[in-house]
Amino acid sequence: MNYPMITYIVGCILSVEAALMAPSAVVSLIYKEQSGWALAATILICLLIGLPLIRKQPENRVLYAREGAVIVSLSWIVMSFMGALPFYFSREIPSLVDAFFETVSGFTTTGASILSNPEGMSKGLMFWRCFTHWIGGMGVLVFLLCLLPMTGGGSHMNLMKAESPGPSVGKLVPKVQSTAKLLYGLYFILSLLMLILLLLGGMPLFDSLCTTFGTAGTGGFGIKNDSFTSYAPHLQTIVTIFMILFGINFNVYFLLYMKKPKDAFKCEEARWYLGIIAAATLIITGFIWKYGFYSSIPESFHQAAFQVGSIITTTGFATADFNLWPAIPKTILVLLMFCGACAGSTGGGMKVSRIMILFRTMLREFTWSRRPNQVKRVYFEGRPLDNELVRSVTTFLATYVFIFAGSVFLISIDNFDMTTNFTAVAATINNIGPGLELVGPTQNFSIYSDFSKIILIFDMLAGRLELYPMLLLFCRDTWRKF
Amino acid sequence: MNYPMITYIVGCILSVEAALMAPSAVVSLIYKEQSGWALAATILICLLIGLPLIRKQPENRVLYAREGAVIVSLSWIVMSFMGALPFYFSREIPSLVDAFFETVSGFTTTGASILSNPEGMSKGLMFWRCFTHWIGGMGVLVFLLCLLPMTGGGSHMNLMKAESPGPSVGKLVPKVQSTAKLLYGLYFILSLLMLILLLLGGMPLFDSLCTTFGTAGTGGFGIKNDSFTSYAPHLQTIVTIFMILFGINFNVYFLLYMKKPKDAFKCEEARWYLGIIAAATLIITGFIWKYGFYSSIPESFHQAAFQVGSIITTTGFATADFNLWPAIPKTILVLLMFCGACAGSTGGGMKVSRIMILFRTMLREFTWSRRPNQVKRVYFEGRPLDNELVRSVTTFLATYVFIFAGSVFLISIDNFDMTTNFTAVAATINNIGPGLELVGPTQNFSIYSDFSKIILIFDMLAGRLELYPMLLLFCRDTWRKF
Repeated sequence: MNYPMITYIVGCILSVEAALMAPSAVVSLIYKEQSGWALAATILICLLIGLPLIRKQPENRVLYAREGAVIVSLSWIVMSFMGALPFYFSREIPSLVDAFFETVSGFTTTGASILSNPEGMSKGLMFWRCFTHWIGGMGVLVFLLCLLPMTGGGSHMNLMKAESPGPSVGKLVPKVQSTAKLLYGLYFILSLLMLILLLLGGMPLFDSLCTTFGTAGTGGFGIKNDSFTSYAPHLQTIVTIFMILFGINFNVYFLLYMKKPKDAFKCEEARWYLGIIAAATLIITGFIWKYGFYSSIPESFHQAAFQVGSIITTTGFATADFNLWPAIPKTILVLLMFCGACAGSTGGGMKVSRIMILFRTMLREFTWSRRPNQVKRVYFEGRPLDNELVRSVTTFLATYVFIFAGSVFLISIDNFDMTTNFTAVAATINNIGPGLELVGPTQNFSIYSDFSKIILIFDMLAGRLELYPMLLLFCRDTWRKF
Repeated sequence: MNYPMITYIVGCILSVEAALMAPSAVVSLIYKEQSGWALAATILICLLIGLPLIRKQPENRVLYAREGAVIVSLSWIVMSFMGALPFYFSREIPSLVDAFFETVSGFTTTGASILSNPEGMSKGLMFWRCFTHWIGGMGVLVFLLCLLPMTGGGSHMNLMKAESPGPSVGKLVPKVQSTAKLLYGLYFILSLLMLILLLLGGMPLFDSLCTTFGTAGTGGFGIKNDSFTSYAPHLQTIVTIFMILFGINFNVYFLLYMKKPKDAFKCEEARWYLGIIAAATLIITGFIWKYGFYSSIPESFHQAAFQVGSIITTTGFATADFNLWPAIPKTILVLLMFCGACAGSTGGGMKVSRIMILFRTMLREFTWSRRPNQVKRVYFEGRPLDNELVRSVTTFLATYVFIFAGSVFLISIDNFDMTTNFTAVAATINNIGPGLELVGPTQNFSIYSDFSKIILIFDMLAGRLELYPMLLLFCRDTWRKF
């Protein structure tokens, strides 16, 4: 285990975090809020710990797969812990576990909150809370990759692999560092575009910024108690469209940027993703209209599209209390929670590509059960997948199911009903935000005990980092010498 | 596709079913019931269709894998349809879909009922209803194998594979036919032993027979409205023990019969199975005692053990309304529903061995994510598994999840709550019987529409036949010529 490199990168993360916290402190200053002190104090702490760690560059800069995984999970934990301090120092979230929960929920772009009254928060901390979504969406280490020179062929790749969502990460351009820069560039441009549209739509600057952060990261922290219900319909429509856009594989945007629209249009995952959204929206529109939740079909469609976009991209904004909807729309939304967005987007969940690979693996098994000796490969995006990848996807499902079952079991200790516990885990491990019943869109996670909150924190991190990096922290073998 | 062989075997099944229905007709005769006519008429129909089909033996008696699968699923459907006729003819279950549901539930040893008042049923039909459990437990085609001569090396095996529960079926003795006979022999002896103990315990003969059928097949149809609540505690204890015994891999009994107790004791799956039962029972005992459901620890233990044994073996008898229990015991029971009993037993669910293989595959993936080049195999029962089997187990999980999600979605159309729909599918696909909430142990499945009942019928059959045979029926490719 390359410990000098681990502490060096953690030092980098802390310094970067201090810099990223500065804008929030400025917001506090503008609004002349007490919370500015809490932010300033945290920035100081980050620098005091971080700067000494990066003074001496480690000689051996090679990172192996397991070190990449360990660095990513440690970074996320340290970063979330530091990010929680302003909430705690300012007493706006008096419990440290709650503050940690809220920050992990922010960085992992979950958007599950323990706050019953977010409007009561100071502007500076509100800004920080939403900004964590934007940072977490594309990943902190990917950001670091843009800045950090590293040696050793696979070192950059091992970091990026561990942090990027989806079954396999492709290099868009030959150098990983350039890929990282490109990704952040596209991310920034799309965010900026959204911000401008929101401002043109008449949303105040502060609201527009926070909404953009939450949408771009597919996070979902609202700045209003009713999430997004009280905004004008045209603003809701802008958010709907951008939520869906941020759930698309960023490869597609890269291909568009490279002026290859044909290749971009061919992306199988994005097409299925959009197809699922269309189908789900239409079915839900029909049901909520038929059951009389909304008076007109266009309004039903508007509500259905917003909720579908919000859930499949795992953003978690809400304009309606879908907990009250009939069973079919609710079931569809719960299924979409597990499906999630595209790999290589800022969305969470299991990812459309994984579902597709699993489905095709199942079909292959049918063929084999009829003709055991036939040679058959699983195809995806027009190419045959190697069995390694298929195996890792099916094992991912097994790991996912085990973590899921274990978490539901452990949080059952708080004695809430099955649907609440089940959807609380679903909402956190898939990085969505709201679940159903007691953790539904109009409720929050404060009902759970500290113990359960820690389980859910683990689920959020495991979900964001694709399970393995978090689990490896608990394997003794990981810490053994080579 | 060897159609002559398929019709021949279906003919055999019908003739055998006529013979198996005879005892129930005798019971009707003894109690001088009208329902005797319904049974007699069905026997006649079975013989009228079945006997002509078996008059001419097919020349080509070779069965390939896909034919084995098709024969097994068709046989189960035909058999269940015929088995449903007495209920329908006698008007004791006036709806044909309901009668079919009840019979499929019987043969698949699910024990989910649409009857709100089973005590109102005539003795003859009650006997038939419980006897379907005993027939379905070990399998009809396995029974047929005892009688039927066949040529072609793999033909017997292809039938047995498609009907036997668990990830892989081993031949106990070199000849498949002898294995089938041996299995039925052990099944019969264990059942007889239980019957004698129940009679010694003071249970009436009719009740003892029906209870034995339900326990041996791990089915769960009760003859009383309150399932097993009103029987004396010592009778409940006998049932608890035998439920657990029938959930053990029959290989263990075979090894004991062969006087190899050491090898029998080594069976990893059975040891884990018993370990899980012990752990679950102890935890549940603690909780239901602490929450004051029962006044003493022994009584809590008694209730916990019965419910755990009933759920993990997927029998589905109940002595308590566990729907009212606290969240932890309920969650454990739901998890046990998915776990299920041992492979090669009469129990359902995913099987302990599959869970173990999945868990070990997950652990192997951890190793690989740290050291990608290490050679590592998954071990089970002391032997390394070949990757074929591991792949089929992980794909099984994916298929299971897809069928599960699809079924929950489709039955949501009836607009019941999530827990009801979720546990209704869990209870049927795992062949358990009762779920939670509206399909809890004191409720029944009559609330669902015919459409949903057909979905649940499919789930019961798919669960009993290990998913693939049922799904293959819907693949056009299955029916294509070679």
